[in-house]
Amino acid sequence: MRVAGETGRAVWGATASTGTAEAARADGADVEPDLDAALRRAAREDALVVLCMPLPHVPEVLRRVATHAPECRLTDVVSVKAAMRDAVRRGAPRARYVGGHPMAGTAESGWAAGSATLFKDARWVVAADDGLDPEVWADVAELAWSCGSLVVPAAAEEHDLAVGRISHLPHILAAVLAAVAADGATGELALSLAAGSFADGTRVAGTRPELTLAMCEGNRAGLLEAVDDALGRLGAARGSLASTGGLAATVNGGYRARQRWAEARGADSMVTVARGTSLADLRELGRRGLALTGWA
Amino acid sequence: MRVAGETGRAVWGATASTGTAEAARADGADVEPDLDAALRRAAREDALVVLCMPLPHVPEVLRRVATHAPECRLTDVVSVKAAMRDAVRRGAPRARYVGGHPMAGTAESGWAAGSATLFKDARWVVAADDGLDPEVWADVAELAWSCGSLVVPAAAEEHDLAVGRISHLPHILAAVLAAVAADGATGELALSLAAGSFADGTRVAGTRPELTLAMCEGNRAGLLEAVDDALGRLGAARGSLASTGGLAATVNGGYRARQRWAEARGADSMVTVARGTSLADLRELGRRGLALTGWA
Repeated sequence: MRVAGETGRAVWGATASTGTAEAARADGADVEPDLDAALRRAAREDALVVLCMPLPHVPEVLRRVATHAPECRLTDVVSVKAAMRDAVRRGAPRARYVGGHPMAGTAESGWAAGSATLFKDARWVVAADDGLDPEVWADVAELAWSCGSLVVPAAAEEHDLAVGRISHLPHILAAVLAAVAADGATGELALSLAAGSFADGTRVAGTRPELTLAMCEGNRAGLLEAVDDALGRLGAARGSLASTGGLAATVNGGYRARQRWAEARGADSMVTVARGTSLADLRELGRRGLALTGWA
Repeated sequence: MRVAGETGRAVWGATASTGTAEAARADGADVEPDLDAALRRAAREDALVVLCMPLPHVPEVLRRVATHAPECRLTDVVSVKAAMRDAVRRGAPRARYVGGHPMAGTAESGWAAGSATLFKDARWVVAADDGLDPEVWADVAELAWSCGSLVVPAAAEEHDLAVGRISHLPHILAAVLAAVAADGATGELALSLAAGSFADGTRVAGTRPELTLAMCEGNRAGLLEAVDDALGRLGAARGSLASTGGLAATVNGGYRARQRWAEARGADSMVTVARGTSLADLRELGRRGLALTGWA
């Protein structure tokens, strides 16, 4: 568990792992090894606290936030935003919370796995529900920009539905594909032949299961909608293949969708925005597929 | 369309594309631009003819094989083996046919897209059904080895079931995933956030649709079995997520399957085999996930 605050140019943090704290300090990082002391320092300096941990660990940390920095500026990088917001409402209701989610990561852990370029050009969702503190919203956007990311404003529930489709469903399909190859009647033969399309399609099935589970189970509603959509489309492909032998609707539709994705992330999708733009207007930009590169 | 024959060290071919013929000749390749003349030369030299084209184009070429090189040594690199064998039985029944399928490729076309290392360390299936000519079987295995590949013997129907699971199903799941992301209620937002897991999971949806369709529709029975297995597993995940919220069986199963795949292709899986080993014994090696590196 880590809590980091940005005060001017100084970034400092706390971690539950002694090894990580020592490795970070050896690299010159400002580390406060005691979480409670770090939170008191954050309260004193009015720092932005960033929670970086799987959702199941959040409630315990929020209890300590409520005790030691109850009104702090607070964000996070957890991959679900509605459940996270609800956890903050319950555990640290006075914190000035604005959720975040950088769309970047690796399957590695620990200080040595850190990378200064991980967030470069990544989309970083900043929750933009009504009622959030606009000053903290700006803090979180500026944190994202300072990491080289593009800011995508989104309502918490819309974020969860979107990542159910593009991040959590891929993990479920990867697991299904791996099992279909390994557990079928042709098991050993199929596994020995599996290469390019299988390797790519199952890559995320190699993620540590507890991380995938925390992510997917934390977004039950959003993932259910995505799985139902996938079941419907896969069932339609099955029916078409069985009745007419044709898969054109499925294959052409997938090809067009992949082309749209490739085109959706070009320079045309990047805009600046005036400081003080309303949260409703910000959400609308995100809905249209736009990403913010900075203040206008 | 290309027909290539290997006679000693000389490889030569024919192609329906004038541009490809000229580019190949400029690189020093021995090209016979007229397909019928190439087949007559193959018959004269008792060369191994390799058919490299999508399944829908095969019947027309086989008619010309039957006319100009009716008893030639014949193999192919088409991704389905039962339909291909049936096409040869109908179109060129006297050809000494042994089917092949190298598990390697790109989405590119034309002479310039050729690569001397494409087949290096790839698995190359050589059909091993009873009744095949053992001399031609050895020719095809030696062709694969000369390209740097490992030979996996398999019955045509077993091959088709296996590639339905590890090659054709990934194309269908990629198309479904791309469409779920692009066509959902959160379309533009979802596409703008889609990154790593989505990019990998949909890569093959970017293949030219006519190639994917020829491949998948040519393996209707094998693909149907794989799609049904995937539908069952995805439905089970859906039910578990909806009722208990848990996905452990799906996620842990996928993780174990992906680990098994990573372990299945190591040095332990590579063996040599005595010349003259029966086709039944060869098939059994392939069933056990073994790959042949050469004659013992």
